[in-house]
Amino acid sequence: MENHLFRGIIAYPVTPFHSNDGGVDVPTLRSSIDRLIIDGVHAIAPLGSTGESAYLSDEEWDEAAEASTKQVNGRVPVVVGISDLTTKNAVRRARFAENSGANAVMVLPISYWKLTEQEIIRHYAAIGNAINIPIMVYNNPATSGIDMSPQLIARLVHEIDNVTMVKESTGDIQRMHTLHQISKGDIPFYNGSNPLALEAFGAGAVGWCTAAPNLIPQLTIDLYEASQVGDLHKARELFYRQLPVLEFILKGGLPTTVKAGLRLKGFEAGVPRSPLQPLTREDTQKLSELLKQVNQ
Amino acid sequence: MENHLFRGIIAYPVTPFHSNDGGVDVPTLRSSIDRLIIDGVHAIAPLGSTGESAYLSDEEWDEAAEASTKQVNGRVPVVVGISDLTTKNAVRRARFAENSGANAVMVLPISYWKLTEQEIIRHYAAIGNAINIPIMVYNNPATSGIDMSPQLIARLVHEIDNVTMVKESTGDIQRMHTLHQISKGDIPFYNGSNPLALEAFGAGAVGWCTAAPNLIPQLTIDLYEASQVGDLHKARELFYRQLPVLEFILKGGLPTTVKAGLRLKGFEAGVPRSPLQPLTREDTQKLSELLKQVNQ
Amino acid sequence: MENHLFRGIIAYPVTPFHSNDGGVDVPTLRSSIDRLIIDGVHAIAPLGSTGESAYLSDEEWDEAAEASTKQVNGRVPVVVGISDLTTKNAVRRARFAENSGANAVMVLPISYWKLTEQEIIRHYAAIGNAINIPIMVYNNPATSGIDMSPQLIARLVHEIDNVTMVKESTGDIQRMHTLHQISKGDIPFYNGSNPLALEAFGAGAVGWCTAAPNLIPQLTIDLYEASQVGDLHKARELFYRQLPVLEFILKGGLPTTVKAGLRLKGFEAGVPRSPLQPLTREDTQKLSELLKQVNQ
Amino acid sequence: MENHLFRGIIAYPVTPFHSNDGGVDVPTLRSSIDRLIIDGVHAIAPLGSTGESAYLSDEEWDEAAEASTKQVNGRVPVVVGISDLTTKNAVRRARFAENSGANAVMVLPISYWKLTEQEIIRHYAAIGNAINIPIMVYNNPATSGIDMSPQLIARLVHEIDNVTMVKESTGDIQRMHTLHQISKGDIPFYNGSNPLALEAFGAGAVGWCTAAPNLIPQLTIDLYEASQVGDLHKARELFYRQLPVLEFILKGGLPTTVKAGLRLKGFEAGVPRSPLQPLTREDTQKLSELLKQVNQ
Repeated sequence: MENHLFRGIIAYPVTPFHSNDGGVDVPTLRSSIDRLIIDGVHAIAPLGSTGESAYLSDEEWDEAAEASTKQVNGRVPVVVGISDLTTKNAVRRARFAENSGANAVMVLPISYWKLTEQEIIRHYAAIGNAINIPIMVYNNPATSGIDMSPQLIARLVHEIDNVTMVKESTGDIQRMHTLHQISKGDIPFYNGSNPLALEAFGAGAVGWCTAAPNLIPQLTIDLYEASQVGDLHKARELFYRQLPVLEFILKGGLPTTVKAGLRLKGFEAGVPRSPLQPLTREDTQKLSELLKQVNQ
Repeated sequence: MENHLFRGIIAYPVTPFHSNDGGVDVPTLRSSIDRLIIDGVHAIAPLGSTGESAYLSDEEWDEAAEASTKQVNGRVPVVVGISDLTTKNAVRRARFAENSGANAVMVLPISYWKLTEQEIIRHYAAIGNAINIPIMVYNNPATSGIDMSPQLIARLVHEIDNVTMVKESTGDIQRMHTLHQISKGDIPFYNGSNPLALEAFGAGAVGWCTAAPNLIPQLTIDLYEASQVGDLHKARELFYRQLPVLEFILKGGLPTTVKAGLRLKGFEAGVPRSPLQPLTREDTQKLSELLKQVNQ
Repeated sequence: MENHLFRGIIAYPVTPFHSNDGGVDVPTLRSSIDRLIIDGVHAIAPLGSTGESAYLSDEEWDEAAEASTKQVNGRVPVVVGISDLTTKNAVRRARFAENSGANAVMVLPISYWKLTEQEIIRHYAAIGNAINIPIMVYNNPATSGIDMSPQLIARLVHEIDNVTMVKESTGDIQRMHTLHQISKGDIPFYNGSNPLALEAFGAGAVGWCTAAPNLIPQLTIDLYEASQVGDLHKARELFYRQLPVLEFILKGGLPTTVKAGLRLKGFEAGVPRSPLQPLTREDTQKLSELLKQVNQ
Repeated sequence: MENHLFRGIIAYPVTPFHSNDGGVDVPTLRSSIDRLIIDGVHAIAPLGSTGESAYLSDEEWDEAAEASTKQVNGRVPVVVGISDLTTKNAVRRARFAENSGANAVMVLPISYWKLTEQEIIRHYAAIGNAINIPIMVYNNPATSGIDMSPQLIARLVHEIDNVTMVKESTGDIQRMHTLHQISKGDIPFYNGSNPLALEAFGAGAVGWCTAAPNLIPQLTIDLYEASQVGDLHKARELFYRQLPVLEFILKGGLPTTVKAGLRLKGFEAGVPRSPLQPLTREDTQKLSELLKQVNQ
């Protein structure tokens, strides 16, 4: 299993839509991925929360998954978000991602009805059995409605061979402490909560899964590097510099704010899909000021 | 607007799946609707949470919506759950339901990313503008991840012509008090939390949206009728008799427990769709005992 | 054990303070108790949350407990709130209340550090062993910081002889359902959440512990009586009439709002003890209007 | 204002009680303070949560406050916890602490009834006006029932001259980020949540208010020093080494666990005051093992 591939800044591209018919704008998706790689991020994660994966039809999802993986073309590792409400379709997507060349898949146990622990385990096992690439468990109760304890996550890692990585997005640093403790440091965990970036690296996260590199790539990379060399003072300074942007994009919803920010930076990636609405004029102005303050 | 049609016990059928390929079992869906009507419920609500609507493909959803409405065939009113993540598809489903003969549609603002109040209002307005039948606003943060305050719900009712009914499923009786107060009793509200049935009728709910009639139809009807004539002592007695069943089916997830209960009653409707799993043997035994205790 | 004594409206007097030195104003305390009895309440509960018991010195508490019990003088039953942070002083107060003639004591497991279930049980057992009158268990996590489950409460009732009554103030009607179910209706429970009065009587509460009779005595008594005869329609009408007042006095803090309301009704009971401040002018105006609307 | 005095490890002694009559054991209190100073902590904070301040009578509190301050005798700075339910007694205690030689007082807005922001401000202002030493605002909703936002805390600092320090015990690192941001780094904040020690120093906390030095003094000091020099790798290693002890003593209640731990280390400080009970035999065994593992 090649999870050692994923370290550092794992960047989440948006999924651009055409302004005329609202369909997926594949050429712009490709360009947005190129931007991130050129800016130096360490991995690409298409079709995550930022990528509005939940709002795509299966045909759109397939198209975006394939285009993303091909566009990266081995320059950096790729982890594709394959979450779906039914196990059957999640399995289908996982296979599709593997066949498209993904290095790993990311799985959120998204559901309408709450799942029991046994149902969650069977869901991951079904996906794990269907593919030969690693799975990154993704815990994000705020969007999925399901909260997996560190103990359950550790069970998934131990019981399912290709579950090898954990993305924690609760924003609760104690979850990372617990993952570290119950695995004696053996389960690699990744931070999915932007305003926790400093603390997550402090606690030993091996990577930061984030949409922020779409807007402030160098700052996210610098924070990772300062943490890697153990320079707490520099890491703190870098973190507080970018924190206003991190808080803003999280609070306003990542697809909404990141697409607005890309437009401000001169990269047109359209607006999010309805019911999500474009960032208001007032908030766009605020974001513009925040981006100017960080000088990127 | 014909929302006066909906009163009393609004019953939620399950969506049966074939045991071989997992597809929607339309003949059994039809029979399950007949059972409910024969048992005396006052309205039918296909494709709600109990109907595993969220787990169906569009084709399956269309088939189930049409079959359900045709099967009811005017014997009682029908309200179809048309919720979907994108506004575009929710609109499409609402039109489809209207064309199939539904008397109303039920709309949960289901989303992956949290919606702002403005986004929620636009979502409902888009649906409202597309159809000529009433909309029942459905608030159920436990499944949708979005909690609409009574104030927001009242705005929807006042600003969008065909939003005329409210299904409240938070289980918080104070929400109903507030709806009653801010509308001076003019907004008809329906209870969607089974263990709150006694109190909701006490507070003035005009109906109870429930999957319980699949298993204990007469008790639910009797509770409604005792409440209607204002007999608190009888309503309390009836409520406590059925409460263990109501609590059990809610706690175990309605599709899971109701399908298990239907099998116990000799009506085979299959099992829920994966990742949802069939009720465990132990819990099925417990449900069997609870159903015997209520003598139905 | 004489807990059958307590039924209906159990009224909570305020503890008036002198305007000059802030000490307890015993003559006014006596008059306020007389008002409640003359207005027809079924029992008196001095030194509860409304009585600012937590803010009194031991000397003040003793004086108020004795004066209250003597003033009632057997006209109605008396249950005295004896809660204190230390078990030792709670025991002392319980004995003092018994010696002063109280018919029962009410005990909230108030604490600074969270208590384990075993610590809670020992606290109640120590008090129970020290007195020969019944104990009303009082659950109010919003003020005490400790939430006792219905299961723990039932244990207290079963394991400690003179724990015979339960005051539930979480505002969660399901707690009352559970108490009813696990005791097969044998544990008498009382409602301590004003905006839940209708539902609590519906669910079978034998009494309502409330400060509202200081301001709207007849409405509270009428609601109890309508519930007793099982007239749901009348109970609902009475409840919605008084609900705005019930919500207002709870939200603003009972000592603050009830003392303001007493002043509005021409009964001067002073202001709450600092850090609690008198009701603002604006809120006093609002309360005045609410009281006029209910015509009392 | 001399708040620059307080940096690093601010240690919380327990308040020992006599085994015979349960009264405050002043000689042992003095010895326990000496232990902490000899072990190298940077400040002493008597009569905090760990010191069971809430469970003491006024006479006991005065005795403990005076003895503690005298015992420190200027060797390190002293901040005395003066929290009380009434503003009047909090003011009295603050003056007493100042007169006893305290360098600062710590104030938690403990209350029975929730306080409005205005009530909280007046409470702090009354204390501030009564003394000439700095106040450390203490936010700990888990014990006080009152949660002060960073915005309210900043108002206290700006509006009341001698409010100059903030102890944050919510365990939410984002509160510290916000305090840093809204004050542009000018409000010195201290961490009061043991399992957040690594992250709090990372985020810029100038001190750690903790009872842990009673059991593992050198590890707490080493963590502070590694953070001060900005050595993230060393700080992380030190933190994870002591984290099991930090989690254990917090979860079991600080007076309970720290007194048990002192006994294990051969320093007899008695047991906490009832209703708090001594640590169970099983948990004491667990604590013993944890202490052995950290080699102190």
